[in-house]
Amino acid sequence: MSDQVLDVVGIGNAIVDVLSQTDEAFLDAQGLPKGAMTLIDAARAEQLYGTMGPGVEVSGGSAANTMAGVASLGGRGAFIGKVRNDQLGGIFRHDIRATGLIFETPAATEGPPTARCLIFVTADAQRTMGTYLGASVELGSGDLDMAAIARAKVTYLEGYLWDAPAAKAAFIAAAEGAHRAGRKIALTLSDPFCVERHRASFLELLCDHVDLLFANEAEICSLYQVDGFDAALQKVRGHCETAVLTRGARGAVVLAGDEVHVVDAEPVQKVVDSTGAGDLYAAGFLHGYTKGRDLYTCGRLGAIAAAEVISHFGARPETSLAHLAEARLGAA
Amino acid sequence: MSDQVLDVVGIGNAIVDVLSQTDEAFLDAQGLPKGAMTLIDAARAEQLYGTMGPGVEVSGGSAANTMAGVASLGGRGAFIGKVRNDQLGGIFRHDIRATGLIFETPAATEGPPTARCLIFVTADAQRTMGTYLGASVELGSGDLDMAAIARAKVTYLEGYLWDAPAAKAAFIAAAEGAHRAGRKIALTLSDPFCVERHRASFLELLCDHVDLLFANEAEICSLYQVDGFDAALQKVRGHCETAVLTRGARGAVVLAGDEVHVVDAEPVQKVVDSTGAGDLYAAGFLHGYTKGRDLYTCGRLGAIAAAEVISHFGARPETSLAHLAEARLGAA
Repeated sequence: MSDQVLDVVGIGNAIVDVLSQTDEAFLDAQGLPKGAMTLIDAARAEQLYGTMGPGVEVSGGSAANTMAGVASLGGRGAFIGKVRNDQLGGIFRHDIRATGLIFETPAATEGPPTARCLIFVTADAQRTMGTYLGASVELGSGDLDMAAIARAKVTYLEGYLWDAPAAKAAFIAAAEGAHRAGRKIALTLSDPFCVERHRASFLELLCDHVDLLFANEAEICSLYQVDGFDAALQKVRGHCETAVLTRGARGAVVLAGDEVHVVDAEPVQKVVDSTGAGDLYAAGFLHGYTKGRDLYTCGRLGAIAAAEVISHFGARPETSLAHLAEARLGAA
Repeated sequence: MSDQVLDVVGIGNAIVDVLSQTDEAFLDAQGLPKGAMTLIDAARAEQLYGTMGPGVEVSGGSAANTMAGVASLGGRGAFIGKVRNDQLGGIFRHDIRATGLIFETPAATEGPPTARCLIFVTADAQRTMGTYLGASVELGSGDLDMAAIARAKVTYLEGYLWDAPAAKAAFIAAAEGAHRAGRKIALTLSDPFCVERHRASFLELLCDHVDLLFANEAEICSLYQVDGFDAALQKVRGHCETAVLTRGARGAVVLAGDEVHVVDAEPVQKVVDSTGAGDLYAAGFLHGYTKGRDLYTCGRLGAIAAAEVISHFGARPETSLAHLAEARLGAA
């Protein structure tokens, strides 16, 4: 098993989500920018949790959600991320392993508790997040399973980890290790505010290490400091081998050299909670990519996986994406 | 505030539920009797959790779910139950307080962790439970807020607590305190296996202390060791002031002296997960009862609250039951 090829290794924050429904007035009163991810410290997390309605806990983390999607599609993979040896850490570990993924990063035995993300879902299905990174920021190069990275077709990096200095160094080490083994590196920009905090180093990372970029419209515009999607699109060409730019209900654009695809969003009966839409888009795309599908089909798989996750509460798939993809692609 | 009348005080196990979808073959392989609650120890809980798919964590506990329903209907109440001072205990405390309920039972600072209930939901929406009682069994008479009990119109006792000897003594103390203050005692039998374990003492409790009994068909038949619902119905008359017997989709029967009501189940578009159906039936009924509604309307309120909770995953209401009740009762 240890020399078996993996499809994707994901590296990201190991987070348990706490989801609750709320209204706009609450977000205003708490000063939370709607639709974005705000980093919060332990004290703020406690205060914010105290004002939150009854919650539902479910394992999350952007790259971890993506990996759960890859597993649901039938891909083989591993996740690398840091929890504490506490109850929430135990939940995270159980859930990611229960999807069939390998997860061997040792839990921290001291320091801050397992990360949590307070997610406020409004009636328009938009999600607004306050993240306490906790033990997640302890992830360092020593936690990387370089053997897994070397035997994975793609190593997928979560931009959010850029907020943790030790993880940033781990990122570079992972990218170098993957490339030495002739593998690909994918990156998601994660969040426009995250891009703003780290614009210069993201651009450097992109040019030097990234083969496959995932970004939504706000993120890619923030990266290049341009106003419109088309302007950002022109800039990203040439900065990496393949760029996957998602635009919510307006679909996605896939760029690879001279190749361009415009992929429509998959119809959804009712959008319940947009948490995880980008994560699952990446899952579908990466699954297609690692199985050698053409780029348009990769985009379709992304759209199908994203449509499933936004049709219910929570950021991990609730139905077999492999069955769903088979039905949808077969029908097309 | 401390002399304000409360509608209901609930006493029960303080549990965090871990829900996961599964199939019949899994239940067979794990030897779990479908539809029932099986008590498990720490080692079995760990083993069973290891075989479980990815889970969703949400505060549970039978009487706690009922109290969350009472709060959602606009009732004032308190919950008494024991958690440990750990992360799951913090989640339980947060969630029950976030519904507006008073919850002041001090957390255990040593001993077993907060209770959890592994809930396996099959495609037919039936739930099968494995409960590790953990810190819950530490509840004793010293944890009772006798002032709250004295000022609550009804004190509602969860039959499941009968599995914990110290809690059993607390039950009797609560019942005596409530009656001294001229208040009512309600009991739910909770589970047919629970009834089987404690039949004689349940019958004694019923005759000596209970004004208002909640039981489903399997439980009441187990209590009186009879085969049919009608036979059980004849037996329970005279054993307590009011008996509320629920029969799932076949509705409920309410008995009070010579008064008898047959209340139909509320139509549900799609039953997703029956977890909490009985708990929420009790919530609706108790809310009507403490607001002085007639017994038929109490039954209708129970049916409306139960219908909401079985239409989604998890055992606590996701919409305002007060609004729902207003709309449904108004429409009738």
